[in-house]
Amino acid sequence: MIIVKVGGGETVNMPFVLEDFARISGPKILVHGGNFELNSLSKALQYPPKMITSSTGQKSRFTDEKTMDMFMMVYAGKINKRIVECLQKQGVNAFGVSGVDGGLVRGKRRGSIRCVEDGKPVVLHGDFTGSIEEVNVELLHLLLDAGYTPVITSPILSYEGDALNVDHDKLAMQIATSMKADKLIYLFEAPGLLQDVQDPTSVVKTISLKTIDQTLEYAQGRMKKKVLAAKWTIEEGVEEVYFSDGRVENPVQKALRGEGTVIRKV
Amino acid sequence: MIIVKVGGGETVNMPFVLEDFARISGPKILVHGGNFELNSLSKALQYPPKMITSSTGQKSRFTDEKTMDMFMMVYAGKINKRIVECLQKQGVNAFGVSGVDGGLVRGKRRGSIRCVEDGKPVVLHGDFTGSIEEVNVELLHLLLDAGYTPVITSPILSYEGDALNVDHDKLAMQIATSMKADKLIYLFEAPGLLQDVQDPTSVVKTISLKTIDQTLEYAQGRMKKKVLAAKWTIEEGVEEVYFSDGRVENPVQKALRGEGTVIRKV
Repeated sequence: MIIVKVGGGETVNMPFVLEDFARISGPKILVHGGNFELNSLSKALQYPPKMITSSTGQKSRFTDEKTMDMFMMVYAGKINKRIVECLQKQGVNAFGVSGVDGGLVRGKRRGSIRCVEDGKPVVLHGDFTGSIEEVNVELLHLLLDAGYTPVITSPILSYEGDALNVDHDKLAMQIATSMKADKLIYLFEAPGLLQDVQDPTSVVKTISLKTIDQTLEYAQGRMKKKVLAAKWTIEEGVEEVYFSDGRVENPVQKALRGEGTVIRKV
Repeated sequence: MIIVKVGGGETVNMPFVLEDFARISGPKILVHGGNFELNSLSKALQYPPKMITSSTGQKSRFTDEKTMDMFMMVYAGKINKRIVECLQKQGVNAFGVSGVDGGLVRGKRRGSIRCVEDGKPVVLHGDFTGSIEEVNVELLHLLLDAGYTPVITSPILSYEGDALNVDHDKLAMQIATSMKADKLIYLFEAPGLLQDVQDPTSVVKTISLKTIDQTLEYAQGRMKKKVLAAKWTIEEGVEEVYFSDGRVENPVQKALRGEGTVIRKV
């Protein structure tokens, strides 16, 4: 089984990704983001995103109730259904499902967040983000066995029944490990993990569990999260994790040919 | 099996509807609209709805590509996922699914529309609306048998793979007849079918197939469509169709007690 996670960046070429995803034979699952579109919508609705910095320095989107409404509109609505439509046109019996549907993905709500504003520590309440705890694998097998290809996105469901925004790289990771997938492919707006973020030719071709901690020295921002997700994915038994370019033609084939970064146990 | 269709009007009380829907025992399916919210979003995004009048005098929303994007945001996104969240909180294992997912509902795209603008006949192209032809009952049984409660909305999928906006009263009707449901309940912004639209006490209590054509004389606008849908639903073997008030507490129980309009074969 192959899990493909496509990021929601502005320059990701979704038609290229979906065309190539459609060609994968065997069971497959697509996980997608929607960050750029969500920012566009929230600006158009004059409710711009509020980015916060945690006490450990991590940046994330503060997701209040209105932001969650917009999140549902973009992720589970427009992007998810446009992807399903595009895959259906190519003969893939795609089935869009968010983490709340049938309790597909469950997690813990953070509730209040300690963060830093203008250098001062503050506690924010009313946040609908959280961690992922479990994936309803029976539901995914039910769909896959019946010939459907799941197209998955947030929100997920808290144990109290609240819709939560979660990290989609971790969502893909949890789905890959829970489903005991063979491969997990991350497609985003870079040719792979770069040794020098300014130099697109500095792609790290292969990483093993032995060398992965060293890469954390130059992996920056969201790439650091992806590397940690990849490490855990491999430790949990997935054979290969790929970081590859989602802006080019045939991005899945190129990833599998090793044109980006390949992470393996050894 | 009971199918409940809740309209997307401004004054429909969704918490009341969902609380009561949650109490229905046995297999059930919810079909929902989202008209008021879609109008609000399209105004906020400065892309107001374009209402057209067909050559036969029927009013409908012209659904171009951008309108379909907003349609997906509101119907399949925010409203569908907020309903799922609310039902999950009440212990119902709700599963949101649009007509495109797994080809749940298939239909024919109209494509171009003959309509009347300023009294003159015109043909509009690029419309993504259509008729409903078939419901994937295997998929609904798959979900129901596994313990999930489907929460269904548009868009549906054309045979060419395009997402289509369809009439939700007809969608509920098609689901009820295809699933051989026992009862179909329409909840909306009126106490039932009114003999005099100005007089909320003029509810027609019971209608049979013998008397239904007479009601078309006073059923106005969208109520005419609902009456025709009800007629066809009963003819296809569903025992009872209810028209009842979606603005009040316990709207499902009240409908079943006959507080609105009940339509039966005899």
